[in-house]
Amino acid sequence: MTTAPAPEDTGTMEPLLLRDDADGIATLILNRPAARNALSVDLMTALQDAFAAIAVDDTVKVVVLAANGPAFCAGHDLKEVRANPGRAFYEALFQQCSNLMLSIVRLPKPVIAKVQGMATAAGCQLVATCDLAVATEHARFATPGVNIGLFCSTPMVALSRNVGRKTAMEMLLTGRPITAVEAKAAGLVNAVVPDAAALDAAVTELATGIASKSPLTLAIGKEAFHRQLDMPLADAYAYASDVMTTNMLAHDAEEGIDAFLEKREPHWAGE
Amino acid sequence: MTTAPAPEDTGTMEPLLLRDDADGIATLILNRPAARNALSVDLMTALQDAFAAIAVDDTVKVVVLAANGPAFCAGHDLKEVRANPGRAFYEALFQQCSNLMLSIVRLPKPVIAKVQGMATAAGCQLVATCDLAVATEHARFATPGVNIGLFCSTPMVALSRNVGRKTAMEMLLTGRPITAVEAKAAGLVNAVVPDAAALDAAVTELATGIASKSPLTLAIGKEAFHRQLDMPLADAYAYASDVMTTNMLAHDAEEGIDAFLEKREPHWAGE
Amino acid sequence: MTTAPAPEDTGTMEPLLLRDDADGIATLILNRPAARNALSVDLMTALQDAFAAIAVDDTVKVVVLAANGPAFCAGHDLKEVRANPGRAFYEALFQQCSNLMLSIVRLPKPVIAKVQGMATAAGCQLVATCDLAVATEHARFATPGVNIGLFCSTPMVALSRNVGRKTAMEMLLTGRPITAVEAKAAGLVNAVVPDAAALDAAVTELATGIASKSPLTLAIGKEAFHRQLDMPLADAYAYASDVMTTNMLAHDAEEGIDAFLEKREPHWAGE
Repeated sequence: MTTAPAPEDTGTMEPLLLRDDADGIATLILNRPAARNALSVDLMTALQDAFAAIAVDDTVKVVVLAANGPAFCAGHDLKEVRANPGRAFYEALFQQCSNLMLSIVRLPKPVIAKVQGMATAAGCQLVATCDLAVATEHARFATPGVNIGLFCSTPMVALSRNVGRKTAMEMLLTGRPITAVEAKAAGLVNAVVPDAAALDAAVTELATGIASKSPLTLAIGKEAFHRQLDMPLADAYAYASDVMTTNMLAHDAEEGIDAFLEKREPHWAGE
Repeated sequence: MTTAPAPEDTGTMEPLLLRDDADGIATLILNRPAARNALSVDLMTALQDAFAAIAVDDTVKVVVLAANGPAFCAGHDLKEVRANPGRAFYEALFQQCSNLMLSIVRLPKPVIAKVQGMATAAGCQLVATCDLAVATEHARFATPGVNIGLFCSTPMVALSRNVGRKTAMEMLLTGRPITAVEAKAAGLVNAVVPDAAALDAAVTELATGIASKSPLTLAIGKEAFHRQLDMPLADAYAYASDVMTTNMLAHDAEEGIDAFLEKREPHWAGE
Repeated sequence: MTTAPAPEDTGTMEPLLLRDDADGIATLILNRPAARNALSVDLMTALQDAFAAIAVDDTVKVVVLAANGPAFCAGHDLKEVRANPGRAFYEALFQQCSNLMLSIVRLPKPVIAKVQGMATAAGCQLVATCDLAVATEHARFATPGVNIGLFCSTPMVALSRNVGRKTAMEMLLTGRPITAVEAKAAGLVNAVVPDAAALDAAVTELATGIASKSPLTLAIGKEAFHRQLDMPLADAYAYASDVMTTNMLAHDAEEGIDAFLEKREPHWAGE
């Protein structure tokens, strides 16, 4: 018995998820290309474990979520789903998937989706859940569950918090893919680039820039972003004012402001 | 005494609201063209009755809300409003209108607004309230109540949940109409087409596509869409996970996934 | 001792905030151009006092928030912040700033941001907080606190209620400015004009148009806009229906509707 990631059922011994660290940037790579990177239970477990490890890894400032092969992620693994019928498996499956998404939201480091192909159902949800997303022109985004009688209800939690209601409803009710350019206009991705090389360059530039910031400040800000969004306005201001005060009292803010006033580079705690 | 729809005060005996069913698509047509399809009490009652009937009509998969004449809908009938001054009438009027809008939201079938002309005040609210909307280039959208001293407060409930705050505020504070192209950019409509013929074609294609989906799945998804939007993120995921499990346990999901894996057309329950 | 606004530390005796009233439009002008109109405690106090005075000034129908010099507003005054270290000052500072923003939201008159240059941090928050905003092509918008170790947590309360999550996160995590055209596409400003002359013309036209409406109606509507946004849908409709009834029972609505039906100009109460 082993605790290593389960090998692909194609018979190869490739791990389901690759991780590549460089310059404070941890790149997680979905690695089930033959299965269009479908989120099997084992792949979700590998992702969850990776995020848990990264959460407490001080060498990681930013995470990039990428994928191998022509597709970014096809959502749940339907063969696995049909091979395990019954309420118990379904409940565990959707709970695991929702917990995975919440782990990305709660991770105290920014996560950038790097989308080189089709992102479908829970794959589209991954893109919506990441803090930022960059896509090639060839990427497509869809919530096609309605085509197979299974409405993309959990993907829509993330989708409907990224794009307007009319766009979300159109994607959910028709199942039709939208292009990367449409996804940019709708608010689902931050930028669209021509090809894979440009995607590498754009994501590296974006990640490197963010990795140069104070990790403490990024952690404070990301948590506050999500918490204040669920509050009425006056509560959000009371909460955010407290966050600002706490942030100001940390070394990195005093150092950052001094460096700014003295026109020099700041040195963050732990560097 | 009759329970038939009240005839127009123009003296014709045309019903205020027409209904035309074909291929699982029920088209409701506002039919007060001389009054710019203003939402008189009788027209709202006719609409409410039509939605109530459609809610329990298994032959209807999708609803199209259309209008006769040059205007889509001019909002409330101001002559009727001024002919019935007093708190009791006003309260009943706005409550009826709000209930009508909530009936569209709660209808377990998608509703598509087919907008061929000006949609004003509660008419603009109808467009915002429908799940999807397609408009011709000539359509216009406005919340002009501010021009007559009556802020479009109920229309803004729907409008401000479709478009950004700055756009909503501009429409509400200035009363100026926006074009169909602006409405598309703002998120109020899904698509803009050149003319009436293209509008017929686009709406028919959209409605026909949705009518081919599992009615149960559409009903589950539409309800979940609205319920989860009003929840904090973690609650939304817990709720949506339950919805997915329930959906998976229904025949249509098992059939849909099997059909997908077997590369055949699915057969939904009741077909 | 004097209660007049504190003079600039540049030694001039210019007030920190100018006010210019004409035709029902009060224009407040941030007047620390040498400090890029940074929001010192004294400038925030002057703004708060001005909004408090305007709130009860029946001659003012609309407020324009403008700025002198090349920058619109650079956010907090970092020199002042670092000169007053410690929790007590920080808490008071962020609370004062949040109260200022809430005063704009709660002011019973529309506020238009007139943005001629860079709007940064709390300056960007001012733009997001105003009901409407017009900018020149040269204006830029940024939340660069992350660059100095101080995440723009209070600015993001307003920003994240104006633009989509992906755009907000990008601005907050990278600190990079967006252009006026990007700000328009994202929903942060209503319109972009070529230059200062066009900005004058556009803001005057917008403000004049709104100043011609019923002040009571504007006050009712603006308050209702914000209150209903924080409610679930059915609650929002119940509340907005009550607001409509109250609005209908006021003189200005009856007068406005009569004027509309009689094709004449309305005369609002107090005119």
